[in-house]
Amino acid sequence: MSIKLSEISTMPPHDSNKKKIEAKTADLVIKIGELQHKLYAEGKQSLLVILQGMDASGKDGTIKTVFADCNPSGIDAYAFKKPTEEEFAHDFLWRIHQKAPRKGNIMIFNRSHYEDILIQRVHKWIDDDRAEKRMKAINAFEELLQFDNNTRVLKFYMHISQERQQEKLQERIDDPSKNWKHKAADWDENDHWDTYMKYYEYAINHSSIPWHIAPCDKRYYRNYFIASKVLETLQAMDPKLPQLPKTDE
Amino acid sequence: MSIKLSEISTMPPHDSNKKKIEAKTADLVIKIGELQHKLYAEGKQSLLVILQGMDASGKDGTIKTVFADCNPSGIDAYAFKKPTEEEFAHDFLWRIHQKAPRKGNIMIFNRSHYEDILIQRVHKWIDDDRAEKRMKAINAFEELLQFDNNTRVLKFYMHISQERQQEKLQERIDDPSKNWKHKAADWDENDHWDTYMKYYEYAINHSSIPWHIAPCDKRYYRNYFIASKVLETLQAMDPKLPQLPKTDE
Repeated sequence: MSIKLSEISTMPPHDSNKKKIEAKTADLVIKIGELQHKLYAEGKQSLLVILQGMDASGKDGTIKTVFADCNPSGIDAYAFKKPTEEEFAHDFLWRIHQKAPRKGNIMIFNRSHYEDILIQRVHKWIDDDRAEKRMKAINAFEELLQFDNNTRVLKFYMHISQERQQEKLQERIDDPSKNWKHKAADWDENDHWDTYMKYYEYAINHSSIPWHIAPCDKRYYRNYFIASKVLETLQAMDPKLPQLPKTDE
Repeated sequence: MSIKLSEISTMPPHDSNKKKIEAKTADLVIKIGELQHKLYAEGKQSLLVILQGMDASGKDGTIKTVFADCNPSGIDAYAFKKPTEEEFAHDFLWRIHQKAPRKGNIMIFNRSHYEDILIQRVHKWIDDDRAEKRMKAINAFEELLQFDNNTRVLKFYMHISQERQQEKLQERIDDPSKNWKHKAADWDENDHWDTYMKYYEYAINHSSIPWHIAPCDKRYYRNYFIASKVLETLQAMDPKLPQLPKTDE
């Protein structure tokens, strides 16, 4: 059963009430903070959250909102940029693996190893054979984190419409407080929108660990959707505060 | 077709002439140095040499002899010891992957990720299911290095007899210049010799990249055997010194 992104809405459900959902999100964020504290104290499991999406799909905003109540000692976010010369001199997972979370921690990847089968494929820097081998290597890598380090891998495709993305890119030009995010190159990538969608679908449909498709046209719903999945995952992990052994005294 | 270590000799072939073989080895070592220089200058491929074997099987001596003529800028050797607390807080390949060679370089692993399905399995720190999953992860990892970074993975099992190993461990006690290598714990591991052999066979027979079984009872033959395979591999890689583009002048 393969996913077609064009058939999945980028908008909140029709009956969504923004105010109510924002209130719910605030509650989720507090609960995430409480469970992150337990995860850190327990020190036996870890969580890797992967955010992948087109420019302006809301990766930074999500991180800022959803994990607002977490203790920085036990959580980190890393934005993968264009590889350095040293990174290019190694296989594509070399720099990624180094950032895998240690036991007790949450790590958030802002972009990830999936770029190596997305932007690189779109621009034909790698051929299909290499992309397919990389997809298999990604599956083996994510499974390794799960079985050998108790790491849950939670992946989100930040699903935004091209119209909404253009609006947000324009905001970066019009709003001085957002100018710092503007990059002319982001507009160029837009010419490849359909190709990106095709390769996102490939990645989503060939992953052994399933993806969540987060509707991202509205910030309030995007935050709610992702916070819900993060909390569900932490609840399933069920971290426990270690207790001192009981004595007879 | 599975390998049985007990059926493979740890000794040189019967007609081996020590003096002649030492002279040949000296020649191989020079040629290895020449090709390492080209590999480094070319900067497009890399070589990972993995040495695995029981204590005193000759890993250190091999490194010292075979790579004596290489330029340290382009070669490195790393001895994996008991994992640190930080390493233990990650999957078993986390620390290994960081040491994978960059393009142009040779990396020698003195022990490796195979310890994680050898000593850990012998002492039952992991169960068979985990060991089997790790074996698959190892295959995926080594294949990744090959297809994504032009890394050749050259693996040697340092095949020594238990009698010869005991002699060499005893030398470490009797010879003051070798005392620094003595560790009482090495003798304890000897109680598990047969179990080690069983799990070495498992690793060798389940690897997708084949192993070389190096007869290690005699130092001179061990060095010759390994130098031959290293040189063959470098010759097959065929690194080329980059040339300036030709001009008409």
